Amino acid sequence: MSRTSPNISSDTAAPVAVTVGALPGSRKVYARPAERPDLRVPFREIALSDPSLEPVRVYDTSGPYTDDAAAIDLAAGAPCLRAPWLAERGLETVAGRAVRPEDNGGASGERLVPRCPAERTILRGRAGAPVTQLELARAGIVTPEMAFVAHRENLCREAAAAEAGARLADGERFGAAIPDFVTPEFVRDEVARGRAIIPANVNHPELEPMAIGRNFLVKINANIGNSAVTSSVAEEVEKMVWAIRWGADTVMDLSTGRNIHNIRSWIIRNSPVPIGTVPIYQALEKVGGDPLKLDWEVFKDTLIEQAEQGVDYMTIHAGVRLAHVPLTAHRVTGVVSRGGSIMARWCLAAHRESFLYERFEEICDILRAYDVSFSLGDGLRPGSVADANDAAQFAELETLGELTTIAWDKGCQVMIEGPGHVPMHKIEANMKKQLEACGEAPFYTLGPLTTDIAPGYDHITSGIGAAMIGWFGCAMLCYVTPKEHLGLPDRDDVKTGVITYKLAAHAADLAKGHPLARIRDDALSQARFAFRWEDQFNLSLDPDTARAFHDETLPKEAHKVAHFCSMCGPKFCSMKISQDIRAEVQAFAAAEEGMRDKAREFVEGGGALYVPAPGETGDPVT
Amino acid sequence: MSRTSPNISSDTAAPVAVTVGALPGSRKVYARPAERPDLRVPFREIALSDPSLEPVRVYDTSGPYTDDAAAIDLAAGAPCLRAPWLAERGLETVAGRAVRPEDNGGASGERLVPRCPAERTILRGRAGAPVTQLELARAGIVTPEMAFVAHRENLCREAAAAEAGARLADGERFGAAIPDFVTPEFVRDEVARGRAIIPANVNHPELEPMAIGRNFLVKINANIGNSAVTSSVAEEVEKMVWAIRWGADTVMDLSTGRNIHNIRSWIIRNSPVPIGTVPIYQALEKVGGDPLKLDWEVFKDTLIEQAEQGVDYMTIHAGVRLAHVPLTAHRVTGVVSRGGSIMARWCLAAHRESFLYERFEEICDILRAYDVSFSLGDGLRPGSVADANDAAQFAELETLGELTTIAWDKGCQVMIEGPGHVPMHKIEANMKKQLEACGEAPFYTLGPLTTDIAPGYDHITSGIGAAMIGWFGCAMLCYVTPKEHLGLPDRDDVKTGVITYKLAAHAADLAKGHPLARIRDDALSQARFAFRWEDQFNLSLDPDTARAFHDETLPKEAHKVAHFCSMCGPKFCSMKISQDIRAEVQAFAAAEEGMRDKAREFVEGGGALYVPAPGETGDPVT
Repeated sequence: MSRTSPNISSDTAAPVAVTVGALPGSRKVYARPAERPDLRVPFREIALSDPSLEPVRVYDTSGPYTDDAAAIDLAAGAPCLRAPWLAERGLETVAGRAVRPEDNGGASGERLVPRCPAERTILRGRAGAPVTQLELARAGIVTPEMAFVAHRENLCREAAAAEAGARLADGERFGAAIPDFVTPEFVRDEVARGRAIIPANVNHPELEPMAIGRNFLVKINANIGNSAVTSSVAEEVEKMVWAIRWGADTVMDLSTGRNIHNIRSWIIRNSPVPIGTVPIYQALEKVGGDPLKLDWEVFKDTLIEQAEQGVDYMTIHAGVRLAHVPLTAHRVTGVVSRGGSIMARWCLAAHRESFLYERFEEICDILRAYDVSFSLGDGLRPGSVADANDAAQFAELETLGELTTIAWDKGCQVMIEGPGHVPMHKIEANMKKQLEACGEAPFYTLGPLTTDIAPGYDHITSGIGAAMIGWFGCAMLCYVTPKEHLGLPDRDDVKTGVITYKLAAHAADLAKGHPLARIRDDALSQARFAFRWEDQFNLSLDPDTARAFHDETLPKEAHKVAHFCSMCGPKFCSMKISQDIRAEVQAFAAAEEGMRDKAREFVEGGGALYVPAPGETGDPVT
Repeated sequence: MSRTSPNISSDTAAPVAVTVGALPGSRKVYARPAERPDLRVPFREIALSDPSLEPVRVYDTSGPYTDDAAAIDLAAGAPCLRAPWLAERGLETVAGRAVRPEDNGGASGERLVPRCPAERTILRGRAGAPVTQLELARAGIVTPEMAFVAHRENLCREAAAAEAGARLADGERFGAAIPDFVTPEFVRDEVARGRAIIPANVNHPELEPMAIGRNFLVKINANIGNSAVTSSVAEEVEKMVWAIRWGADTVMDLSTGRNIHNIRSWIIRNSPVPIGTVPIYQALEKVGGDPLKLDWEVFKDTLIEQAEQGVDYMTIHAGVRLAHVPLTAHRVTGVVSRGGSIMARWCLAAHRESFLYERFEEICDILRAYDVSFSLGDGLRPGSVADANDAAQFAELETLGELTTIAWDKGCQVMIEGPGHVPMHKIEANMKKQLEACGEAPFYTLGPLTTDIAPGYDHITSGIGAAMIGWFGCAMLCYVTPKEHLGLPDRDDVKTGVITYKLAAHAADLAKGHPLARIRDDALSQARFAFRWEDQFNLSLDPDTARAFHDETLPKEAHKVAHFCSMCGPKFCSMKISQDIRAEVQAFAAAEEGMRDKAREFVEGGGALYVPAPGETGDPVT
């Protein structure tokens, strides 16, 4: 049952509470891999009402908040499970950059949100020694992060894999190389090749590591963040906890306005998932909102500030080059990326090449030192179906490919951001071009939205595109909420966006023939067929909504075992009738072996009627 | 503005009221094709706030209810626009079958809903003379229905077509043969070939004709209907009006329980869209709910009863043969079609071949006489991803192909129902197999749902599959609401289902490169880019929701012209910044022709920086 955490100590004004407690029918379990008994890999176990059935284990992003045994103390931050691993990595401890008033947009007095009091030692890699997961992987080192990821991706289902392998391996993978079983060495190899990243800043010890790559489960990102117009720190921290409760694999904090630094401190210190940011937003705040006042110094300062806080990946719009900007002049919707438009404006007004592009190697050096992964931003992504796959978009993508090579040479982990608004017939080309241009670096797309005509429903217009591009090979899908284009998402919108993207990512995993993806589908469908209503609710992505919808018309406890629902009523329930059919067919099969062969013969031959077993009737369905 | 119609006369107890009034910013218009000035083809015209822009015309399914000039009288029924056409068709007038108590499930006294008092002459075709649209098409006759459809599909946009043709023709059509311009002769030819149907019972004069076929706009169906457990006649009639208000192209009345006949009379007499039914449901009610008591006589009686009322298409599960039933024995979810399970149960219990299969030619003769189209039911569709594309499903599909040929020989219009639950990688095979097995008869699928794990969100799991199969060639998509698997949809669920399927169908049209489909996307995106908020709302599929979402955070009138929304706030609005960029780029372009060529040279050459026009700066974004 979800509930609200108790208030944290009164001397920290915000945030006060987040949603905690296990999901219905579920409990948190931790697995200790045989080869790495020091690791505690979290899963969620969904109990089934039929005692003959094993609980169903599912991938779990929700951190300590759904662990009924965990004490949640937001002021102290989440447990630092990576601290012992990081202690062995030969990192240097640094004093860290002092926080300045402009980091919080000059907020002071009552308008200044307090910083999260949880203090962490600030770490940084040394030159010449491997620090990033990519450098470590290339050095042949299987990090604890890689072992954790391998175990997490397998869902501890060795036995199920052996049993289910043949049954499930029927997907279409478009060149992806998904193994039947994920080993730590496989993870190392994928990271070393740049085909996967493990976003894991050395200053984010609270992180439960995860991988983004097309040979792993498809991941989803939820954006949170206030805007200058609305929302508070308490809301944003709760949005993070809420987003991971429903399955967000990473969270991007896109806050603008005041208190950016301090809000982020609460989010990172309490986040078990990688946190991404777009540093140019904060840099712009530091110069009073005028893109023309941006320069390398303020941007560099912001990178270091955020890297020291523990941001795991950063969107850098270094692909928006001066020469690309005129290519957008005849677009229906111009430049629709916030970061992209800021940089385009800067380039054009300053009559200069982008400083992000010119200083890219220096950016790499900074990000490498903390193992901040690049999310190379698609500043020129299409904002309407009219602009999809145009010259501006693909010119930038080529540049991102060039930058990927540089970042890899510098030892940095890289993923590539993608669109946007793309009609269905142009989606596959995006995936193919990205793989070619960017050397198979993971792709991370926003949707794409497959039509422009449904504001208010863009979680759906984009969920269609997201499922498809996930199938084609996209590694992470950035959610879109129902409020897209209309306003800042609230808590309900975040949930709707996350659930929509979870189902899209899962549909992609199924279509790729991901080993074991179908276990949950089958468990739910078996529960449905057997009228185990509670199991059907609990196995669903959103048990609360499923139960509420059912109970709108049939609220009584007795209806939780009823062999019908209000959709068809008792006489017309196909599942009920089908159970009767099954009993009859099985009785017949027992009486006469080979019935199915006969049936097949019948179909092929178009011949004589099938002769039933004697006495084979059933009660009418009442 | 929507409002509720006044109560109808008090001597008819139900229904009392439906939603009427134009959609926001819209008005109903009627076009008179030059070649057929007697036709009044309805459209919706969305006015734009920029006086230099033409209103946008959209396909309109909503009938008189959105025409502010129309007087709505539910007891009198909708206007009979087809009456003069039908009068010229040489049909015979029949007395009609007398209504019997069992037609309404034996309801009497207060429990008996009154029949709709609107009386219509009951018509029937004669043997030997063409009566169905298929027979007329084969005879070379372009019916008024065909001319109406042609004009409706073109959206009267001859000029726009000429202008936009090259820009838009970039889809992937998978063998569909969509013309740039739809002529009445094209419609006739498609109907004659069986590639399209115009469901149009001769006893449904209120119908505004529409076509279902893969060379036309993709259509959607909304299911309504009470179950034995819940819902009333007033709700059901309002659901029909509500569903077509948001864009349902056809409506299926799946009512079970009491009062089926009389509820249907209200629905058909007031419906401008084709009404579909599943006659076996009512037949089962007539025999007290016991599938084993079903026989040809009660089914035949039901066909005639419903055909005389004006049902436009009927789902007939004649493909569920005795020999197919054992093929479902090892399925995860058995038989999940209500009609399919009833017939499977009957076959197995009676140890006999399905009477629907054995009597199929007789069924054809009845349906032909009223031009009721077949919707050949997929009684064995998969109810879980585990069961997708299995032997039972495809054995039935082969049978449906065989039945299609028989029905065509008998002069009947035919479409084919399809699944169901299908993971993405198995969807295209469904479409291909259907086209092959059924001679290109239109396909009509339920979703398909691409995963089983999201009850409460199955409009989305299925919207993904629906968009894809629509793209591949499916002609009509049967909606799934958020309540699927959980309960009977209410009015809100109907709307959510319809909007989701409208956007899926539109995404499919876009991907097919349907001429002019993109006009609405472009108009909306242009409005978005120009901060014409009211236009953005009004051009969307659901203006009420789009406006409400926007107004949650920025309710003031002044915000309807603001150059930002609460999502990003004023400083971070990429559209705003992008407008500034555009102004600068255009100023530059005016100063120096060939700038874009230079930009391209730059990208290709990777060389010198672009030299801007003098004085090219802009105000900071504030």
